[in-house]
Amino acid sequence: MTYCVAVKLNAGLVFLSDSRTNAGLDQISTFRKMIVYEKPGERFMCLLSAGNLSISQSVREILQVEQLKDPETDEAITIWNAKSMFDAARVLGAAVRHVYDRDGESLKRAGVDFNVSMIFGGQVAGEGMRLFQVYSAGNFIEATAETPFFQIGESKYGKPVLDRVITPNTPLDEAAKCVLVSMDSTLKSNLSVGLPLDLVVYEADQLKSDRIVCIDDNNPYFRMLHNTWGQKLREVFDSIEHPTWDGSHTAVPLMTGSARRALKKISTPKDKLI
Amino acid sequence: MTYCVAVKLNAGLVFLSDSRTNAGLDQISTFRKMIVYEKPGERFMCLLSAGNLSISQSVREILQVEQLKDPETDEAITIWNAKSMFDAARVLGAAVRHVYDRDGESLKRAGVDFNVSMIFGGQVAGEGMRLFQVYSAGNFIEATAETPFFQIGESKYGKPVLDRVITPNTPLDEAAKCVLVSMDSTLKSNLSVGLPLDLVVYEADQLKSDRIVCIDDNNPYFRMLHNTWGQKLREVFDSIEHPTWDGSHTAVPLMTGSARRALKKISTPKDKLI
Repeated sequence: MTYCVAVKLNAGLVFLSDSRTNAGLDQISTFRKMIVYEKPGERFMCLLSAGNLSISQSVREILQVEQLKDPETDEAITIWNAKSMFDAARVLGAAVRHVYDRDGESLKRAGVDFNVSMIFGGQVAGEGMRLFQVYSAGNFIEATAETPFFQIGESKYGKPVLDRVITPNTPLDEAAKCVLVSMDSTLKSNLSVGLPLDLVVYEADQLKSDRIVCIDDNNPYFRMLHNTWGQKLREVFDSIEHPTWDGSHTAVPLMTGSARRALKKISTPKDKLI
Repeated sequence: MTYCVAVKLNAGLVFLSDSRTNAGLDQISTFRKMIVYEKPGERFMCLLSAGNLSISQSVREILQVEQLKDPETDEAITIWNAKSMFDAARVLGAAVRHVYDRDGESLKRAGVDFNVSMIFGGQVAGEGMRLFQVYSAGNFIEATAETPFFQIGESKYGKPVLDRVITPNTPLDEAAKCVLVSMDSTLKSNLSVGLPLDLVVYEADQLKSDRIVCIDDNNPYFRMLHNTWGQKLREVFDSIEHPTWDGSHTAVPLMTGSARRALKKISTPKDKLI
């Protein structure tokens, strides 16, 4: 599997991906799932992909040459000349459909779902940042202030901390920390997600990023975060009172009377019901 | 959906279930997913169920009258007279197969999977405690010291804290706190899991339990835990350094040279590839 997450903040965008790919548990490999498209000063885009690796690799390969026709000018729109991130996302959707047209029928015959999901975000000079999640059908949705992050792949383990922390006002470095904690929880609980990680932090309106890092076992920040988070989480856990079963103010009231009888079958079996 | 979790410790067993059932998002109801079978001093068993509600309700109904033949004595084995939890789990497996024989074909015609999963644990006088996870086919696996907990339903959100805390030596009340934190994370991130919760704490060799509680919105312990956990988690998160991008000891080393070029596509598109 895979775990990728991207966040859209007022201050910028943060992208994080793992790099484990597996076809069954005995065929595990490392593949990068992030790619950055940058024309400094003009456009910055980042693409994260999950799902069938042959599909996502094909989409990434095609994406650089894929084009849509502009209905007004009849000119070709590519991710390199699109005037908006929305148009660039349409080009990405078209690339997904292109791969479907090429491979979909054969995959179906082989019993393989056409399964790919992508997160695509960035900024083109002249408009604000945008962040999209693109589905297997090439359609897509956009992140909003109410839903400022997208996750693809093994998303559930790492969702609670994002739900607790991320808002559009979260500062960039705090969001970077948060997605790394989210990834750490996922790594802890799911073998199919693995290091190294690729992290991109994009500051609004820069139209380029120098904060592109590959995080492996030896990365001092991620090691610190992993150890500190695990240890402090444990301290917090230990600091919360255990439940008590008497009358004190945090006691768990014991169930009595009919509520208790509804849950509990006591003693001998009923007569045969069926 | 549903979230149920059960833990087997040296000190006893802990069972927790939510009570939300949904058939699509506009048909949400409250159904209890826990049932306790107790003959004080002789046997204590607890069953948690997830999956198709009509199946799990039928299994629970049948379970009290289901019987297997003992091949040696030709006597009927039920959950009320089984000499071991293993035999009781076999009776439960037989009840699942009984419902499959009755409903499986009709469900298949209606395009509905025969989907049910259960956690079943407890103790029969004369042997140790045991905890099983029972599948749709009526087969089952048993918890061990290495894998002391089972989860069914929406299990991923709440798994990281269990992975971090639970070992066979965890005290009972600490385990009760841990499954409640695990449930709290699940409630936070998934609408299809909801209050009230049913919690059972069983102390080894008691062959009965008085710690059976229903936890709703007003439960003071769960409210305290929910608020404290959320707030302290946030404090821990805030206490961890943000990543820095310079040369300090926890810095995230920036990617340079070929590694960076491998991730980044700069500027103009390649020639047409396809």
